[in-house]
Amino acid sequence: MTGSGIYHHLLQPDLRMMLQEDDQLGLQEFCDALYPVVVAEVLEGIEVEEAWRVLKSCSIERQAEILEFIEPQQQIELVDAIDRTHLSKLIEAMSADDRVDLLEHLDEDRVEQVLPLIAQAERDEIRKLLSYPDDACGSIMTTEYASLPEQLTVRDALDRLRQQAPDRETIYYIFIVDEDRHLHGVITLRQLILSRPHTLLATIMRRDLVTVKVDDSVDAASRELGRFDLLALPVVDEQNRLVGIITHDDVLDLVQEEAEEDAYRQSAMEPLENSYFSTPIVTMARKRGVWLVVLSCMSLLTAAVAKSFNAVEDRHSWMAWFLPLVLGSGGNTGSQSATLIIRAMGISSLTNSERWSTLRRELMTGCLLGLTLATMVFVLLPPLFNLHIAEAGVVGSTIGVVVLLGAVTGAMLPLLVERLGWDPAVMSNPLIASISDMLATATYFLVAMFLLEFILR
Amino acid sequence: MTGSGIYHHLLQPDLRMMLQEDDQLGLQEFCDALYPVVVAEVLEGIEVEEAWRVLKSCSIERQAEILEFIEPQQQIELVDAIDRTHLSKLIEAMSADDRVDLLEHLDEDRVEQVLPLIAQAERDEIRKLLSYPDDACGSIMTTEYASLPEQLTVRDALDRLRQQAPDRETIYYIFIVDEDRHLHGVITLRQLILSRPHTLLATIMRRDLVTVKVDDSVDAASRELGRFDLLALPVVDEQNRLVGIITHDDVLDLVQEEAEEDAYRQSAMEPLENSYFSTPIVTMARKRGVWLVVLSCMSLLTAAVAKSFNAVEDRHSWMAWFLPLVLGSGGNTGSQSATLIIRAMGISSLTNSERWSTLRRELMTGCLLGLTLATMVFVLLPPLFNLHIAEAGVVGSTIGVVVLLGAVTGAMLPLLVERLGWDPAVMSNPLIASISDMLATATYFLVAMFLLEFILR
Repeated sequence: MTGSGIYHHLLQPDLRMMLQEDDQLGLQEFCDALYPVVVAEVLEGIEVEEAWRVLKSCSIERQAEILEFIEPQQQIELVDAIDRTHLSKLIEAMSADDRVDLLEHLDEDRVEQVLPLIAQAERDEIRKLLSYPDDACGSIMTTEYASLPEQLTVRDALDRLRQQAPDRETIYYIFIVDEDRHLHGVITLRQLILSRPHTLLATIMRRDLVTVKVDDSVDAASRELGRFDLLALPVVDEQNRLVGIITHDDVLDLVQEEAEEDAYRQSAMEPLENSYFSTPIVTMARKRGVWLVVLSCMSLLTAAVAKSFNAVEDRHSWMAWFLPLVLGSGGNTGSQSATLIIRAMGISSLTNSERWSTLRRELMTGCLLGLTLATMVFVLLPPLFNLHIAEAGVVGSTIGVVVLLGAVTGAMLPLLVERLGWDPAVMSNPLIASISDMLATATYFLVAMFLLEFILR
Repeated sequence: MTGSGIYHHLLQPDLRMMLQEDDQLGLQEFCDALYPVVVAEVLEGIEVEEAWRVLKSCSIERQAEILEFIEPQQQIELVDAIDRTHLSKLIEAMSADDRVDLLEHLDEDRVEQVLPLIAQAERDEIRKLLSYPDDACGSIMTTEYASLPEQLTVRDALDRLRQQAPDRETIYYIFIVDEDRHLHGVITLRQLILSRPHTLLATIMRRDLVTVKVDDSVDAASRELGRFDLLALPVVDEQNRLVGIITHDDVLDLVQEEAEEDAYRQSAMEPLENSYFSTPIVTMARKRGVWLVVLSCMSLLTAAVAKSFNAVEDRHSWMAWFLPLVLGSGGNTGSQSATLIIRAMGISSLTNSERWSTLRRELMTGCLLGLTLATMVFVLLPPLFNLHIAEAGVVGSTIGVVVLLGAVTGAMLPLLVERLGWDPAVMSNPLIASISDMLATATYFLVAMFLLEFILR
């Protein structure tokens, strides 16, 4: 999420020097000549007042551009330090999607203070974009798209496009709409450049469009844009009226962000908002500790299960040696199944026949894997650990059962969670593993009781 | 990786009907009117011969376009079924980056058969692209970029662009090069459209460019393209000559693929090449089994450690109950640290001072987390499990130590692996957890021996 540290090291000393010498010309050049993202990265870690001394050396448009690349937390600190007139100008200058992101992070009071200072048309648009839920396409789309009516000629279209261009997020896709903004087609700037000047747009536009609905999930948008290799994806309402577009760069950000969140979730921690090195130790400990505490509490349940089989364990103290092996096999198999199913569901939600097929596939794979591991363990334990064949049989058959159980529960839990209307991804590997631990411990002792104490006693 | 199943269900029956009735016109319309990606998705699961009956109904250019969207494995099956003349035409019609992807997957013999049939210029280019290592920018770039000299006027530039356009991957970024292909600047088509016809390109082009070197890693490319919100990133050689471009859609594919590989790796399995439902059970079991066997063998080492403390365990059989808790705390903390460090390294490689800072931060976070969990366990165990305070002390202090150890080793192992020149991401959570298991088991029994048998005996 945070940029590479390289620019920091190279440019921050120069910037601090210019600030110290109050070199206005230098500061202005710094803001205007560098890419906005680079300015934003160098400003990371600079105190709020100093950062404003830098930013105020350039135009309000440039300030807005740079601000768009600053991390949410620093954005808010910056914005909290200026008066509402300045803030309202800044907001007007920001692009439609980025300003909504900013406003979503601000206090409601502050938002209500600022909104009256913003022009009516933009204010209405902001309120509309703010009203979409966080994971709906409406919340990440921008309303600054290029659009034209279909009865124009290519020459007129290019003229009209030149007028629209300055405040459009992209002009490489031009959407063809009627007076009521119903979406009829799309034309690329490439097509426009290659077509003869007197051709009508209606004759060259593409009519079968890939679109998303304004309340479709952002995941659907990123999937479709990626699938069709698009630069921008039109967002329509229930009446097929164009309400916005989602652009390739926002989708890339989204996909990267989600990959990051997934990585954290699979490692039993809350996602970080800032980079590793700029997150305070206490924040870090909190984000990690929450999950460690939850998972520890679940391990206490496993301990309670183990304790209830105290008598068995006392007679067969070797059983404890293989507890990590038994739990690990179940947990890892469960994680595999859960990951496979969650990814399959991410591509498209499963039909009922696919659900059954999942259960069947996991039963079969679980049997294969269980048999393999059980045989391996059964053959290795007697020579390696000096175990009786019956004892190796307990560990081996437990592993067989636990792997099969892991495969099936790992796959079924995400399906169950989805049925409850939650995000199946909450079933992270550590959570699956800790549920599997409980089942596996009980299985282990039950198998031992059955094999050693009833059959072979 | 594999497309949504929706199109399958809707369109495959229609397609099979057309094949049965040998409806040439219908087949041609099917190929020409739908998006190539949709045709590719519907062809998934159709037998090779039938698929060729569909594809042969359309032009070779269209065949190439559709083929580019077909999954690697099916691509190879398809390509293996045609003669080398047809294959050579297909390869000529494919875009530069996609055909190299295909050739990389083919037998060397087959490649050597086909290459002589391809035009000299394209053949040289293919050989050059094939020579770049898999993770270098050279291997994913395309050579079909739009480029112009800087002394042109905007009007002339547009004329030249119209000639280049048909076989360029994008004309929205036009790269400004001299006769020796040295890269001097970039102009967007948007700028060109907005500028006056007689303006010289040299006066409007952007001169400070974001570029990558041909042997930079593809990760660097995807990071830079994402950071600067670019449509395409120029790839240059050591002499700053433009050799190719990497486009936004390829980066998005790459990021999605890597997220997927990561998810599999974190779940202790090899990545799948095909979708969950189209992977044969045996392949699935193999991809999962390899890791389960490796991790089980590591668990046997943990068992050996536990066995060596047999005497302690026999005297304190309650210790086995909390083994899952102790191992889980260590493993989860280790996974957290490893994930944090691997992600931090993914953004930019760590400086030496950052390595030290990592060690310091993990020590401090580990202490905080260890203390919290240790206290919680120490307070909860006596009432819940009827344990003596000294016994609760063993579990509590072991967890404190194990969490600290987990935090430090989890962070240090990826750094060590990177030093050895491997990808730090091989240190997946399951692997970290199984290393941590061994350490944690030894710690548990050592602490018990020390506290219960030496101090309190």
